Amino acid sequence: MIKPFPDEFFMSMALKEAMMALQEEEIPIGSVIVAKNQIVGRGYNQVERLHDVTAHAEIIALTAASNFFNNKYLSGCTIYVTIEPCMMCAAAIGWAQIERIVYGASDPKKGFTLFTPSPLHPKAIVETNVMNDECAELLGQFFRKKRE
Amino acid sequence: MIKPFPDEFFMSMALKEAMMALQEEEIPIGSVIVAKNQIVGRGYNQVERLHDVTAHAEIIALTAASNFFNNKYLSGCTIYVTIEPCMMCAAAIGWAQIERIVYGASDPKKGFTLFTPSPLHPKAIVETNVMNDECAELLGQFFRKKRE
Repeated sequence: MIKPFPDEFFMSMALKEAMMALQEEEIPIGSVIVAKNQIVGRGYNQVERLHDVTAHAEIIALTAASNFFNNKYLSGCTIYVTIEPCMMCAAAIGWAQIERIVYGASDPKKGFTLFTPSPLHPKAIVETNVMNDECAELLGQFFRKKRE
Repeated sequence: MIKPFPDEFFMSMALKEAMMALQEEEIPIGSVIVAKNQIVGRGYNQVERLHDVTAHAEIIALTAASNFFNNKYLSGCTIYVTIEPCMMCAAAIGWAQIERIVYGASDPKKGFTLFTPSPLHPKAIVETNVMNDECAELLGQFFRKKRE
């Protein structure tokens, strides 16, 4: 069976968000939140522009999706993020009771999987390495340019 | 020596924020951020009003203080919170490199001290039990009323 909306489709939408961040010289991380194959929230990292450490892609996408539903709980949703969420974002995803977390590249320095216990909803499903190379490459590009 | 601005003074300001939350039927948690004995950010829990799990007192106070300084780093600051921060808020406090965290009552269910490693800045100092009774009583009042 061909899945009409595979994870790669929505991850490429998250990558599009990450590219917006790159254009604005932010660390290129993007996120979309999906319910029933529809994007209900999106966001890209805006920490530098807003001078605000809480302006991560996922936090912006969560606020957007909550506005969409007028509901703080996003239990039927999947969040796509190009890079493994940090602990702030993972805990926010847990508060919102998001069911499925799909990310591209791991973050071995700041990723939430470095912490115990998990802050996610106990029933949440996590999928990793979706378009890993594309997600990691965008980040690599940013840091290479920074060092030039 | 009499301290001109003891922690109890700023914690009572955080409690004033928590009372604003109580009036709006939110879980009563309040926070202020202080630099050089001046309040540079304040916030109270607005999760229900905004339908947004990220609208915790500390996150709102952090964004306000970052706006005040036009700087994402708040390294010279102390954050006062009536209840032990959750992991989302503690990680945000860590990202902002806040130096000193003062809280009232512990949160044995969702508090950040349940997690390892700590998400705070490695040099951050944590003080607990400042006006513990007042902070806990306000929360107790809210939940007792909820159960009526």
